Amino acid sequence: MTNETELNNLRHAIDDIDSELVKLLATRNAITTKIGALKSHTGTPIYVPERETELISKRRQEAELLGVSPDLIEDVLRRMMRESYASQVNDFKCINESIKKIVVIGGGRSLGRTFVSMLLRSGYRVDVLEKKDWQQADTILADANLVIVAVPIHVTEQVLSKLTNLPENCILADLTSTKSSPLKKMLEVHKGPVVGLHPMFGADVTCLVKQIVIVCEGRGDCGWLLQQIRTWGVMLHETSAEEHDKVMSIIQLMRHFTSFVYGNYLREENPNLTELLACSSPIYRLELAMVGRLFAQNAELYADIIFSSQGGVSMLNKYKKQLENALGFVERNDKQGFINAFYETQQWFGEYSSFFLNESRNLLLKAHDDRAFL
Amino acid sequence: MTNETELNNLRHAIDDIDSELVKLLATRNAITTKIGALKSHTGTPIYVPERETELISKRRQEAELLGVSPDLIEDVLRRMMRESYASQVNDFKCINESIKKIVVIGGGRSLGRTFVSMLLRSGYRVDVLEKKDWQQADTILADANLVIVAVPIHVTEQVLSKLTNLPENCILADLTSTKSSPLKKMLEVHKGPVVGLHPMFGADVTCLVKQIVIVCEGRGDCGWLLQQIRTWGVMLHETSAEEHDKVMSIIQLMRHFTSFVYGNYLREENPNLTELLACSSPIYRLELAMVGRLFAQNAELYADIIFSSQGGVSMLNKYKKQLENALGFVERNDKQGFINAFYETQQWFGEYSSFFLNESRNLLLKAHDDRAFL
Repeated sequence: MTNETELNNLRHAIDDIDSELVKLLATRNAITTKIGALKSHTGTPIYVPERETELISKRRQEAELLGVSPDLIEDVLRRMMRESYASQVNDFKCINESIKKIVVIGGGRSLGRTFVSMLLRSGYRVDVLEKKDWQQADTILADANLVIVAVPIHVTEQVLSKLTNLPENCILADLTSTKSSPLKKMLEVHKGPVVGLHPMFGADVTCLVKQIVIVCEGRGDCGWLLQQIRTWGVMLHETSAEEHDKVMSIIQLMRHFTSFVYGNYLREENPNLTELLACSSPIYRLELAMVGRLFAQNAELYADIIFSSQGGVSMLNKYKKQLENALGFVERNDKQGFINAFYETQQWFGEYSSFFLNESRNLLLKAHDDRAFL
Repeated sequence: MTNETELNNLRHAIDDIDSELVKLLATRNAITTKIGALKSHTGTPIYVPERETELISKRRQEAELLGVSPDLIEDVLRRMMRESYASQVNDFKCINESIKKIVVIGGGRSLGRTFVSMLLRSGYRVDVLEKKDWQQADTILADANLVIVAVPIHVTEQVLSKLTNLPENCILADLTSTKSSPLKKMLEVHKGPVVGLHPMFGADVTCLVKQIVIVCEGRGDCGWLLQQIRTWGVMLHETSAEEHDKVMSIIQLMRHFTSFVYGNYLREENPNLTELLACSSPIYRLELAMVGRLFAQNAELYADIIFSSQGGVSMLNKYKKQLENALGFVERNDKQGFINAFYETQQWFGEYSSFFLNESRNLLLKAHDDRAFL
């Protein structure tokens, strides 16, 4: 057999195995669809962390026995699970059947729409109240058991201030990305149960499994609502409104702001983007993508987040001061000063810096896998 | 049958399929190992983009016919290919058997060591010349056919200036992350073939498939060396030293610098990192990881890159000016100014901003898959 014939034979063998794999995925799909239907019927949570961990750990062991990389099988399984979560469930169990009506203010767009859809799929009656409907607001809100405010951040308080007339046992909740002032306002206008929610995902996310919603307690019993959200696969994280706002202003304001500055800098520097990409290793490419993706999105949304952040100006000035410090090292050619600051921050990150290095390594490998050169 | 029994049965069926998958991967491994041995014997490139594209496109079609997501099968195949590339080859075909000796200066560490290992696996005799060996340098270099300089950037020119006595037909190459001055220096000290190389990967990378090496032509025929590097699966990207340096100072200097500043800012702001992570959606988590990972690495290396960049101070000042502009919008509450600048930069990115949004989406989904909540 010539080398070429042998190589061709081996390649055919690979093709056969890969076709077998496609069939295996189809069979798996059919079973997870059945599991989904059963879970939605019985109200079993779609995402069971223990089951996932056990399943992965068993397959890792089997892989090791057969000389297959355990990380490979784990990555493949996790990718398959994503698919099966997304396709698995059409309907969710209704946790509180005594609920007559839910109103989502601003439910026609963005995250409001996501919540409307999830609540409908959980068997609730949901009405949407938009700007144009305010004349009928009293009628729409009169018999609501839950009102969710999902309007843009700069009109949240204005909308909340109109909700002085809700039924006493109605839950009032909001989805705003800051929590202290909306929560204060909600407690002020409404005497019944109040809870602040901040979904940590965008309106483009359709499967909520493993997504996070931050919960800031207001007043009264909102248990059924939280339990309902959990049936969607969401992980709840409880914290105080103050802690939330501090952490969020760092996460959102600062990262968006610095990406905004970096994008504007690139525009002014005006490098050849095609050449920039050609010369980029996965990590630089990823960093560039993180900046570039901001500008594919909605300017007003980012302006809202940045301009409405309390204490934002003072944080941005702190950042500016750090920039001037660092620039000073370079201008004075003070390498040692740079290195000292580096070690200080390294110490501040503690074990997290190597944690981040490991976590990002897997992702960078994935970025590398996706690279195509044709 | 009770619901619970049924759920258990279905879960067992999933387990069986996943065990089948592990076996399939083991069989696939055995075949790709044979392919690797055959390729290394015949000198066929380990990475053949056309074969990869064809294989993926066929399986995507099969998936579609069976109602399986084509993206799912593509992601799984790419992940499997990464594994098979990494495990496939131990040796590479030697492209130029007339080569008697290669010397890698600084070959004992970092990227130098990677090149030593790849050249040894390609059947060459490789000598390493370290600082302590300079007394024997003349003897070591006397009969070299290729000298690769892989020393830290701040000593590159100093080392190059000692290489005035190389054999006339010897190729002189370097791996420095800037290219203009080293290339100029190499052409000055050596009259024979010269080429500047910049590997776009770190010393932790062991499989070079799909990795990029930037090539800046110097003088003469270095064809066999480039062809040899290609057998490792590396993609070469040719550009001029000037273009390379401009692009690299943006990619490396600016990104490292801004990450450095952001890390220092975090240290000063001193938020609770655990809470920060708990509240982070995949994208914020990833951005945080990109900053944090810097500080898990070598301070001197980053100081070298930042302090040795030509024109660095002027670029950093441009960035500072953009920061002051953006800060001005916030301080003056000039939302419209912010939005105008946003649109200007959006226009500058052109089609790339939505390209980046799409590219990063897949990665963010992967980051989400990897999340564990136990």
